[in-house]
Amino acid sequence: MTRLSNDWRRTHYTKDVDESLTGENITVMGWIHEIRDLGGIIFVLIRDRDGMIQLTAPSKEIDDELLEQIRKLRKESVIGLKGTVQESGKAPNGAEIIPSEIKVFSLANQPLPMDPTEKVKAEIDTRLDSRFIDLRKPSVSAIFKIKSKMLHTVRTFFEENGYLEVNTPKLVASATEGGTELFPITYFEKEAFLGQSPQLYKQMMMSAGFDKVYEIAQIFRAEEHDTLRHLNEAISIDMEASFMDDVDVMKVLNDLVQEVIINVKNDCKEELKTLEVDLATPEGHFEIVNYDDAVDMINSRNVPMEWGEDLSRAAEKVLGDMMDGYYFLTEWPTEIKPFYVMPNEKNPIKSHAFDLMYKDLEISSGAMRVHQHDLLREKIAEKGLNPDAFGGYLKAFEYGMPPHSGWGLGADRFNMTLTGLENIRETVLFPRDRRRLTP
Amino acid sequence: MTRLSNDWRRTHYTKDVDESLTGENITVMGWIHEIRDLGGIIFVLIRDRDGMIQLTAPSKEIDDELLEQIRKLRKESVIGLKGTVQESGKAPNGAEIIPSEIKVFSLANQPLPMDPTEKVKAEIDTRLDSRFIDLRKPSVSAIFKIKSKMLHTVRTFFEENGYLEVNTPKLVASATEGGTELFPITYFEKEAFLGQSPQLYKQMMMSAGFDKVYEIAQIFRAEEHDTLRHLNEAISIDMEASFMDDVDVMKVLNDLVQEVIINVKNDCKEELKTLEVDLATPEGHFEIVNYDDAVDMINSRNVPMEWGEDLSRAAEKVLGDMMDGYYFLTEWPTEIKPFYVMPNEKNPIKSHAFDLMYKDLEISSGAMRVHQHDLLREKIAEKGLNPDAFGGYLKAFEYGMPPHSGWGLGADRFNMTLTGLENIRETVLFPRDRRRLTP
Repeated sequence: MTRLSNDWRRTHYTKDVDESLTGENITVMGWIHEIRDLGGIIFVLIRDRDGMIQLTAPSKEIDDELLEQIRKLRKESVIGLKGTVQESGKAPNGAEIIPSEIKVFSLANQPLPMDPTEKVKAEIDTRLDSRFIDLRKPSVSAIFKIKSKMLHTVRTFFEENGYLEVNTPKLVASATEGGTELFPITYFEKEAFLGQSPQLYKQMMMSAGFDKVYEIAQIFRAEEHDTLRHLNEAISIDMEASFMDDVDVMKVLNDLVQEVIINVKNDCKEELKTLEVDLATPEGHFEIVNYDDAVDMINSRNVPMEWGEDLSRAAEKVLGDMMDGYYFLTEWPTEIKPFYVMPNEKNPIKSHAFDLMYKDLEISSGAMRVHQHDLLREKIAEKGLNPDAFGGYLKAFEYGMPPHSGWGLGADRFNMTLTGLENIRETVLFPRDRRRLTP
Repeated sequence: MTRLSNDWRRTHYTKDVDESLTGENITVMGWIHEIRDLGGIIFVLIRDRDGMIQLTAPSKEIDDELLEQIRKLRKESVIGLKGTVQESGKAPNGAEIIPSEIKVFSLANQPLPMDPTEKVKAEIDTRLDSRFIDLRKPSVSAIFKIKSKMLHTVRTFFEENGYLEVNTPKLVASATEGGTELFPITYFEKEAFLGQSPQLYKQMMMSAGFDKVYEIAQIFRAEEHDTLRHLNEAISIDMEASFMDDVDVMKVLNDLVQEVIINVKNDCKEELKTLEVDLATPEGHFEIVNYDDAVDMINSRNVPMEWGEDLSRAAEKVLGDMMDGYYFLTEWPTEIKPFYVMPNEKNPIKSHAFDLMYKDLEISSGAMRVHQHDLLREKIAEKGLNPDAFGGYLKAFEYGMPPHSGWGLGADRFNMTLTGLENIRETVLFPRDRRRLTP
């Protein structure tokens, strides 16, 4: 076939077919989910993105040619179905379709590389190898419907609050924040790197007077980690705002997370049910634990941790045990945070940096930033980096830079908190890790 | 300073300060745009993202210390200003602020690397070298306010029409569409590439049953071009939909472009005025020119072109001269289009591919796709590519692939058509080309 003929156009999605359409001639499109041939009657479940409908073919009422065509259908083939809606107490939607015509768009080979009906649980690697089939399972597509809803809510939130969307470059000339976690690229005759975060660019937008900006885009980290919480390519939700401090942007983050949860609960009821997730709506402000207290709490559980250290995995776990849901970790030691984090004026070994945690999972990091050129230059040097390599960035601080704050929220990790999933690979369509680059 | 003290919070943006606030004490934040010291009275224009307000300091009414502080202000420094609103026929907003207190957040060094007041036109390279100042010009920030509005309209359009947002990987294992226009990456011990388009992934989402998807994300092309229309990193707006043909998705594109224009005209009046753009709203369907006719039209203007060739730059130019605004170019020769384009059933040397043009600029390419596994495999081989290298992609066509169509729309090029700009570098915050990787 080439162009779709006008008489083979979908009139209804399966979720919209119910008894109110009884007697109507409709056309649906979808995948063969199941076939039960009882001899005198054939039942075929047809699945599309948001539901299923039953084709019911009683052999006495259907002409032989069509019956033969139905008998030849293979699971997961794609068909168009024309027929009449009939009320049915037994069918899933309270309605079924008595077929009048069928068109096979694509026959599925047999056997399938994996079972899409959820009867057999597959390992994550098998699932990812045949991701196009894995995603046909309602319990898998639900994850991405929730993710799409989450991203849309985030953008609407920012738009309604006066943020401008920006697109900052992912090809960068030098290691933006120091560290060795960068993928090198051959950029014509030069070397370049993939951006590990839009941090320096969104700060430059503050100097440009853009006031409040956001970006949702890929970030790339050449981390060797092989954990359930890390990927080498991820989606980061980033914001930055002028004339705001860390407390202000924590409030923005708090409000945003709550709005996402409310919207997902309202608009993704089916998906949450499929995933068996009972999402709690956090009320008011998330709890705030400062770093000093966190160290004490962690030590109290016999996990050794010195003041000034980052949280070990064991430390995150016991803290996550003691705290429920979302909470902020604040007043981090300046030394273990990046150079652009504002130190506390009275006690500069502490900083205005914060993380947003969900149980034992860090989902966001933010801070009030250093906006004073000389202090920033000094702090870059203190980290053992060469300030001259940050020329284009530092220049933006010399000609009028407002105080500003911001955060980055890992979209995939945030989605883990909404879907109750433990492995970040499940929340990404085509995850990229140390071992996986395909499909 | 560290945290922002509570008594230095913005109460108003400058655009919201008018005579209705007369007598009120307010706080604004912004950049010193201009200072005119007439001795007995000082005028200071303070600029924020969306406007300006005049600070008026008559020396008799202001205390000496504050007056001295105002005299010391330098252009482009960032300040906070507290004062009383006073009606003023002469001031830009019909109102001015009589200062009571000033706080300098950031002093700007002098001289500035470029003039942000638009009095002196700078070359594009000078502008991009100091992009953070260039973006302070209303005529430059207007471009990005329109872009943000455009992107938001696009997403809302897709959400309202039942599309799911997807995020496909930008790190890919092999040359997705063939060709040599790929940036190689060192991915741990392997070689990988940067995605030149989400094409193969969005098609796999059709096999996954996602029905209608969209993605707005970076694409990377290692083209050696050095033109006003090409960049090596760009933003692509991509959609793909099942059970639709090329005519269907052309309609989607047509509707979307019109909706964007309507929204930009409604919501970006100031920005369009600043850019001196009088945006025409295209009515109804865009004109459709088929490839055969285009060849004749181009030849009629004495630009040589043979049937089967792609349009040369000269051909695009004369065609753009003859056509006004947006138009579709359809029925392209199959041979010069990628392997995934559906050939015409009756005459397979022609295809179901189309481009959307704006005058002489191609802004979108789309097509009905090949959804038949065997034909696709054959077409990959015909292009001189190895079908086995497309294993993960081809597999998605073997187990139930619906007919589908889609397009990619260049966001930066689309923005050129909205802003009347000739150089794509002007529509990108930090453009990446053959010579430029910074800032």
